[in-house]
Amino acid sequence: MNTTTTPLTDLEIAHSAAMRPIGEIARKAGIPDEALEPYGRYKGKIDITRLPHKEESGKVVLVTAISPTPAGEGKSTVTVGLADAFSLLGEQTMVALREPSLGPVMGMKGGAAGGGYSQVLPMEEINLHFTGDIHAITTANNALAALIDNHLHQGNQLRIDQRRITWKRVLDMNDRALRRVTIGLGGPSGGIPREDGFDITVASEVMAVLCLAKSLDDLKERLSRIVIGYTFDKEPVTVRDLGAEGALTLLLREAFKPNLVQTIGGTPALIHGGPFANIAHGCNSLIATKTAKKLADIVVTEAGFGADLGAEKFMNIKARQGDFKPDAVVIIATVRALKMHGGIPKDGLGSPDSDAVKRGLPNLSRHIDTIRAFGLEPVVALNRFTADTEEELATVLEWCREQGIAAAVADVWAKGGEGGKDVARLILEKIEAGNEFHQLYDEFDSFEQKVGAVVQKVYGGDGVLFTDKALKQLQDIEKRGWDILPVCMAKTQYSLTDDPGIMGRPEGFTITVRELIPKLGAGFIVCLTGDIMTMPGLPKKPAAMNMDIDREGHAVGLM
Amino acid sequence: MNTTTTPLTDLEIAHSAAMRPIGEIARKAGIPDEALEPYGRYKGKIDITRLPHKEESGKVVLVTAISPTPAGEGKSTVTVGLADAFSLLGEQTMVALREPSLGPVMGMKGGAAGGGYSQVLPMEEINLHFTGDIHAITTANNALAALIDNHLHQGNQLRIDQRRITWKRVLDMNDRALRRVTIGLGGPSGGIPREDGFDITVASEVMAVLCLAKSLDDLKERLSRIVIGYTFDKEPVTVRDLGAEGALTLLLREAFKPNLVQTIGGTPALIHGGPFANIAHGCNSLIATKTAKKLADIVVTEAGFGADLGAEKFMNIKARQGDFKPDAVVIIATVRALKMHGGIPKDGLGSPDSDAVKRGLPNLSRHIDTIRAFGLEPVVALNRFTADTEEELATVLEWCREQGIAAAVADVWAKGGEGGKDVARLILEKIEAGNEFHQLYDEFDSFEQKVGAVVQKVYGGDGVLFTDKALKQLQDIEKRGWDILPVCMAKTQYSLTDDPGIMGRPEGFTITVRELIPKLGAGFIVCLTGDIMTMPGLPKKPAAMNMDIDREGHAVGLM
Repeated sequence: MNTTTTPLTDLEIAHSAAMRPIGEIARKAGIPDEALEPYGRYKGKIDITRLPHKEESGKVVLVTAISPTPAGEGKSTVTVGLADAFSLLGEQTMVALREPSLGPVMGMKGGAAGGGYSQVLPMEEINLHFTGDIHAITTANNALAALIDNHLHQGNQLRIDQRRITWKRVLDMNDRALRRVTIGLGGPSGGIPREDGFDITVASEVMAVLCLAKSLDDLKERLSRIVIGYTFDKEPVTVRDLGAEGALTLLLREAFKPNLVQTIGGTPALIHGGPFANIAHGCNSLIATKTAKKLADIVVTEAGFGADLGAEKFMNIKARQGDFKPDAVVIIATVRALKMHGGIPKDGLGSPDSDAVKRGLPNLSRHIDTIRAFGLEPVVALNRFTADTEEELATVLEWCREQGIAAAVADVWAKGGEGGKDVARLILEKIEAGNEFHQLYDEFDSFEQKVGAVVQKVYGGDGVLFTDKALKQLQDIEKRGWDILPVCMAKTQYSLTDDPGIMGRPEGFTITVRELIPKLGAGFIVCLTGDIMTMPGLPKKPAAMNMDIDREGHAVGLM
Repeated sequence: MNTTTTPLTDLEIAHSAAMRPIGEIARKAGIPDEALEPYGRYKGKIDITRLPHKEESGKVVLVTAISPTPAGEGKSTVTVGLADAFSLLGEQTMVALREPSLGPVMGMKGGAAGGGYSQVLPMEEINLHFTGDIHAITTANNALAALIDNHLHQGNQLRIDQRRITWKRVLDMNDRALRRVTIGLGGPSGGIPREDGFDITVASEVMAVLCLAKSLDDLKERLSRIVIGYTFDKEPVTVRDLGAEGALTLLLREAFKPNLVQTIGGTPALIHGGPFANIAHGCNSLIATKTAKKLADIVVTEAGFGADLGAEKFMNIKARQGDFKPDAVVIIATVRALKMHGGIPKDGLGSPDSDAVKRGLPNLSRHIDTIRAFGLEPVVALNRFTADTEEELATVLEWCREQGIAAAVADVWAKGGEGGKDVARLILEKIEAGNEFHQLYDEFDSFEQKVGAVVQKVYGGDGVLFTDKALKQLQDIEKRGWDILPVCMAKTQYSLTDDPGIMGRPEGFTITVRELIPKLGAGFIVCLTGDIMTMPGLPKKPAAMNMDIDREGHAVGLM
């Protein structure tokens, strides 16, 4: 661990790190000059149409985690640290990550680009606007919204029922006051009044579409399929009906190019796309992962929240649509989070408590079973925090040994790639050994079978209950043939059940599906279970309050 | 003029133009490598702190116009063409322009980067997101809005009266349905309900602030002074009271760096900032103009709308705050627009009509008097359109000769810089001759005197009427000492009066000031006269409907 008396902040570590010019990183990754479009000195976009033709033969290492707790798991930190560890072991490596959303950066998080000595750089710019992708998504989403309301205002030729418009506006901001609004007020010049609401941009279907498209043409085709609402005859209205797919594609053209940056260890990193892991699939863009598979031998990538959400969707949605398979899976656990799953509240985490760690292990065990259900044998990375005791760490490692699970401590926050070598070696063994990856359900299974497979094989639940509303929606979905699509479960990340208060490894529960939302552009059907927040709020003291620039113009207050 | 039977579109001309790498343009402009941050191959941001120390000794040529009409004046086109003309004449030249707003690009305009052979490149990228400045302004504006509503929600320690919040959210979109909204609905978790509205981003005070700040420190200081509303005791609440100026400055740090691109003729161009010319001052950023004055001998720049709005504010606000003076002023007129001022409707412009041109000349005459009132002798540039007859053009030139006004035809749309040489030579004569520039009013004049000076010396009106509401607001402004600031007239651009229907050179009218809005960050008091649209709507057939990408991923449908 860091031995100075006042440990450096992530921002201080990032500032002190020596960055190499982005052209050098591109050359290291095998990206020819003509395919690199620099954005400032240390960021670049990749024009994939100018990459040399190569097989997508890189091995994909998926980093996932136990159910998240307020204690923090450090998933991005471990993902970055593992990539640097592979680089140190001599592997040609790339890391593929999601782009941070400004909303949470300004709200609770203060930054999201790894931590300690396992960060992606330039940390300030990645956290603030980056190359503008999320702003382009906001713009495309809201251009569509403006075109819809303009269509109503200009005579409503398509007979769109303003009470059944499902397309919402978005902002990349935590702004609870925009969750429910009425628009179109102020008389005839202000358009048609109706109820509406704003989501945060990363919850936009445009984000999901950008992250699953295989090419610019596929992006346009997917955008055209988006359902924005229904007519007075309850028929779906699509972007194609409005004729807006060309403009939206044009607005997203630059955003669709993967972004290249570097880790503190100098490993090339693709940071591209960042959909929510509940109402969307929670992984970086498919195009970035495929590009990394072309360029590198080892591709380290993460999926959002715990394995029940991010990893499940990585497999059943992203890998399925992208026609590839993961070669190894790492599940991150921490002593702190296991203690919380073992019943210790956040303010009690300071005291060593190996028994609590033990009581939390069933949560890890559930996620191990999930990965095994996909035909993969996971590696457990125990992400070390400063206050962890040797006894607590040993408790976890010993349990893993008993279960026949490969496990090691990752000390990447304090030591960078060097601290991730043990885990990396275990992963290489798994890649070497091969796996028998298979999906949990077939696309031709019934919709109930698909949801049931996720609930039973991933959450460990007994079954699924559809509300009357959801059943009615299912009939409509089946009638239109949309049930061929995979399911995208929108469930609380804090529990394997649909009740955020139930931690650990619950059993004997059912999941209630309350509403179905067809996302035809993304290519999945969202199943809402419980209240899913798609527009966060700011806390009492937002992280923004600590942000500033210093005399040299450097950022202050990013974490 | 272009002699092919089907003339090329602006986009086709832009695509066929050979661009030089941005590093080459930077070297040509005397910008050292370490001060250039490339954004893609053909755009860059300038880190002004790394420029060598130099006097701001370049001569400023302000391009303004007669009162705009639906016929179009081509102000950006002439500005770009003149810059290329100066380059051809051997002058070290830069052009400084405003950034296009996406809202109008998607709505009516389809593009705003000059036209024909007088464009700035890369036209597609400049029109679509560019380097993200406007998105950063949207984000800073809306972060402040979210912090305000969060303050209300979290206990409202500052006792902000939710009925008196003046800070609105913004989007860079033409979206009439957002003009008047109610927010904070849906119960306690959705915040405090209140009436609200969205403006287009270029109408944000953040845009005005960014365009008038002299340094990053000044930017922060100005942001902190912004008034966001009033307490229950009717005392102003500022950004400083909320403690948000640090975060907003950080969000705007990259956006504050001027953007470098090139004209078709290879002249270095700074495109930076783009505030409205009614509720704000309508010029590119002060920092871009000052940077250009350092780097070039001739700086060609434009101000929005006609001389009554853009040029007046360029002088009384931008030059005053920036402590510099214009060295020459060009007034653009067109045969088409003069015919409209002479009473011909838009669909009647096809027929030659020198008498109508003559009848429209008083509008030009009024704007000439305005520039003379500032102690400058303007040059008239008659911007040639394809259908203009020699007789019509001669009518204007002859009248100018009679009035003792230097005038020449600018044929820059068809011929690029070559077509602007005659006007450029006249401008060089004016610069050589010097001028006796002076402001129209002193900062210590009373507020009524300031408004009166603009109405009488610029609009040619008899006087000013303040409504009771405006008078009450004026008392408050005087009480707080804010009347030291210059006035920013928000008036229709179509008329010298406050009635958009009255064209030509009206006389014997008064201007009614209906409302005063203190913009303490920008450093002016807005005087609202008539209805000023701060959130445009989309037309029946938006330009977006024609936009697309072709098979090579090039833009289609930008104009």
